[in-house]
Amino acid sequence: MPPLLNPRLSSSLKPLLLLSQFPIAPRNFQIPRQLVSVKRRSFSSLASVQSSDNGGRSGGGRSGALSPSPVAEEVQRIDVNPPKGTRDFPPEDMRLRNWLFNHFREVSRLFGFEEVDYPVLESEALFIRKAGEEIRDQLYCFEDRGNRRVALRPELTPSLARLVIQKGKSLSFPLKWFAIGQCWRYERMTRGRRREHYQWNMDVLGVPEVTAEAELIASIVAFFKRIGITESDVGFKVSSRKVLQEVLRCYSVPENLFGKVCIIIDKIEKIPIDEIKRELNATGLSEEAIEELLQVLSIKSLTKLEEILGGAGEAIADLKQLFSLAEKFGYSEWIQFDASIVRGLAYYTGIVFEGFDRKGKLRAICGGGRYDRLLSTFGGDDVPACGFGFGDAVIVELLKEKGLVPELSLEVENIVCALDHDLQGVAATVATKLREKGQSVDLVLESKPLKWVFKRAARTNAQRLILVGNTEWQKGMVVVKVLSSGEQYEIKLDELE
Amino acid sequence: MPPLLNPRLSSSLKPLLLLSQFPIAPRNFQIPRQLVSVKRRSFSSLASVQSSDNGGRSGGGRSGALSPSPVAEEVQRIDVNPPKGTRDFPPEDMRLRNWLFNHFREVSRLFGFEEVDYPVLESEALFIRKAGEEIRDQLYCFEDRGNRRVALRPELTPSLARLVIQKGKSLSFPLKWFAIGQCWRYERMTRGRRREHYQWNMDVLGVPEVTAEAELIASIVAFFKRIGITESDVGFKVSSRKVLQEVLRCYSVPENLFGKVCIIIDKIEKIPIDEIKRELNATGLSEEAIEELLQVLSIKSLTKLEEILGGAGEAIADLKQLFSLAEKFGYSEWIQFDASIVRGLAYYTGIVFEGFDRKGKLRAICGGGRYDRLLSTFGGDDVPACGFGFGDAVIVELLKEKGLVPELSLEVENIVCALDHDLQGVAATVATKLREKGQSVDLVLESKPLKWVFKRAARTNAQRLILVGNTEWQKGMVVVKVLSSGEQYEIKLDELE
Repeated sequence: MPPLLNPRLSSSLKPLLLLSQFPIAPRNFQIPRQLVSVKRRSFSSLASVQSSDNGGRSGGGRSGALSPSPVAEEVQRIDVNPPKGTRDFPPEDMRLRNWLFNHFREVSRLFGFEEVDYPVLESEALFIRKAGEEIRDQLYCFEDRGNRRVALRPELTPSLARLVIQKGKSLSFPLKWFAIGQCWRYERMTRGRRREHYQWNMDVLGVPEVTAEAELIASIVAFFKRIGITESDVGFKVSSRKVLQEVLRCYSVPENLFGKVCIIIDKIEKIPIDEIKRELNATGLSEEAIEELLQVLSIKSLTKLEEILGGAGEAIADLKQLFSLAEKFGYSEWIQFDASIVRGLAYYTGIVFEGFDRKGKLRAICGGGRYDRLLSTFGGDDVPACGFGFGDAVIVELLKEKGLVPELSLEVENIVCALDHDLQGVAATVATKLREKGQSVDLVLESKPLKWVFKRAARTNAQRLILVGNTEWQKGMVVVKVLSSGEQYEIKLDELE
Repeated sequence: MPPLLNPRLSSSLKPLLLLSQFPIAPRNFQIPRQLVSVKRRSFSSLASVQSSDNGGRSGGGRSGALSPSPVAEEVQRIDVNPPKGTRDFPPEDMRLRNWLFNHFREVSRLFGFEEVDYPVLESEALFIRKAGEEIRDQLYCFEDRGNRRVALRPELTPSLARLVIQKGKSLSFPLKWFAIGQCWRYERMTRGRRREHYQWNMDVLGVPEVTAEAELIASIVAFFKRIGITESDVGFKVSSRKVLQEVLRCYSVPENLFGKVCIIIDKIEKIPIDEIKRELNATGLSEEAIEELLQVLSIKSLTKLEEILGGAGEAIADLKQLFSLAEKFGYSEWIQFDASIVRGLAYYTGIVFEGFDRKGKLRAICGGGRYDRLLSTFGGDDVPACGFGFGDAVIVELLKEKGLVPELSLEVENIVCALDHDLQGVAATVATKLREKGQSVDLVLESKPLKWVFKRAARTNAQRLILVGNTEWQKGMVVVKVLSSGEQYEIKLDELE
């Protein structure tokens, strides 16, 4: 159909103001209906032409936008783009978002997880940790009108911890919770990074065993399979923070440096290795310890790790159990040990994992791990816990790379149209009947030529066109046209299913 | 099941640290598994007891929370409540939210509307109008790290307008869009008001006729009917801003005062009438005009209105058409004319309506109207438009009043449990098979006594319990117990549906 805001078209439709003295008339007027652009006018011109308000669609192209507007006291030409780093979701993008979220939800349901959510706006204190995480410097924070320091959440886990502490004894463990929430980070806008994304989280609380991590990875694998991503597209790199912990312990590194060291190591692929060494050195690690640490971090084989750390440690035991469970869950081909994985959040204490694309083009697809001691940092009693975050951005990039973005289009079941303006009410009755039977109806709300209606039906992928015409309606009937076959028949309204 | 965080219980489980020298052992340990509280310890004690990290669940009750934590450098006792005026959604609340949103979505689908969304964080400029709306003083706004003035959206319509201007010619009108988005207002926290709510919006753009408003009200009625609300519970008060406009025109009130006058009148039921008069007078309205205005606003009958305004105006014509269509749509009993309805947003230009509870206990349930000239206030070309907003708070209050809040509980299809720790992997295989067949599975992730498993099954409303035991598994079989009937049988894993 022709674009409605086309200034060239609408400039062909000029002085309709004379019609505006008949307040109802313009609605029946047979000038092409697509030209609905209502021109800005000052109220004074309105006052001089009685009752021209709704009907008085004067023509004219896209004129100077700064003429006085009747509603606001002034016209303010706004930036029509969403704020930098944020997104609108017009229908086509919203369909993709819903498709993705529905898969998140369905996988979570299959795994017996319950959905939760938290405020987008949280106390800033919840996110202020002192390990030098990137996340802290990227906080959208401000003081509200009540002088509280608040922040748009950059992640969901601290809110989860807060809620669990709050609920205390009323909860039945283990908790298996999932959430799909928008998170905010004020990142530098390089390489197509955005400042908000939605994140699917699944968390298990109350289970100290690695079975929980194994279950979480199983759910992500189930998700990938559903959307057509295979183990040749993506994999999981898995390690344990306990590996690092054991190495640091050998060199008598103070334990309170652990979080800080992890944060530095997480940057290994992002900044030069000399910078990493310098930063580690600045925390007090000896050069020998740093070399040993980097040596261990380069290990990609569990057997090799065991040779170095010995078989008695928890790191090895956890990892062995996880790989054994992966086989039973059926996703061995998806996971691999990689000692360099530590993740960028200070609170992880055990297994950590990261989903990556095997072509190495994209940022991490998802990541997670065990955080058994997060609750006590907020003054609560600790509960063993693990979880993951899975953003809505990188996965869509991957789907695009693989040609797996689904074609999703609007699909209405019926388009209902009155052939005569007087029958608009009858069309409303027809639409109501169909909707009461669970049928979706795009009701044509104006008098439109049939050609327009067919174009609309094509755009909305309508299955049936229901026409309300005078001749048929006198017999209590409507015309049904099945749009896929072209089949056409008359039917009594009551019999319309 | 027993509460896990009960300090009295966990204090009975004390010096397990000796076990921690066997890193795997504590996981098989048969002490009641519900006691999973992991105590905070300093890293130094950890270092002296090798590999005690995960297994070393020492006992002890809720002790002083300010002892040093191993993860953060300090413990910070946070406020465990969400920020004032905001909500957490634990599973039970999330189920209700999803139930409500699903009805919003389903009704929107039945009416052929497409879902959209916009950023929660928008440019402040989008919401700064000069008519003295309450909404402006309640804006959550701040300067971001890039010195942009931004605001958490208080409503969705300005974002819709922005997106429509941005998309311009690429759009096919009429647009029928809906959104369910969170909105923020820094309101004084009286009478249980909150500072955020979710709002269902439906908007029709490109239709100048009242059929659009009639369709919108029809959709809200359809929503009410679905959730059990009848026309004896709620109604819609309907008027048109053009009524006011016509009165003001008679008294030669400058048209640019229109928005401001509407905002004042909207407060009629909230503040004393003398204050209303004073405010109207301050805008420059004569006492005579004010009296006439208040007179007209008290009219509850369209016939009476017609007597006063005459039959030629658009206000009357629009309202008559709307009431006529209401009959055809089948919701005559739901709507009534009430000249006092003007709504509190400056941008409405025509029909305005408001859903109210007939007992008069609650705030407006929803509200909307026509805003044909909003786009030009942002520098765009106008498009005839109308829409409504429907919050998620008042409706829940109403459902509670009427005893209509549905009982929604977690429902998993299967709970799968290994009877022996060594069979945990097999249980994972069983769970995977079932999930691949679309069955939801709550997999028991630890060794638990059967009594615990039955309690868990009752809490999750599991339909079947699948037990993986040694004897049966040697034959490749599992035990299925149908929990509603108690029926129990063995079945080959491959045959399990």
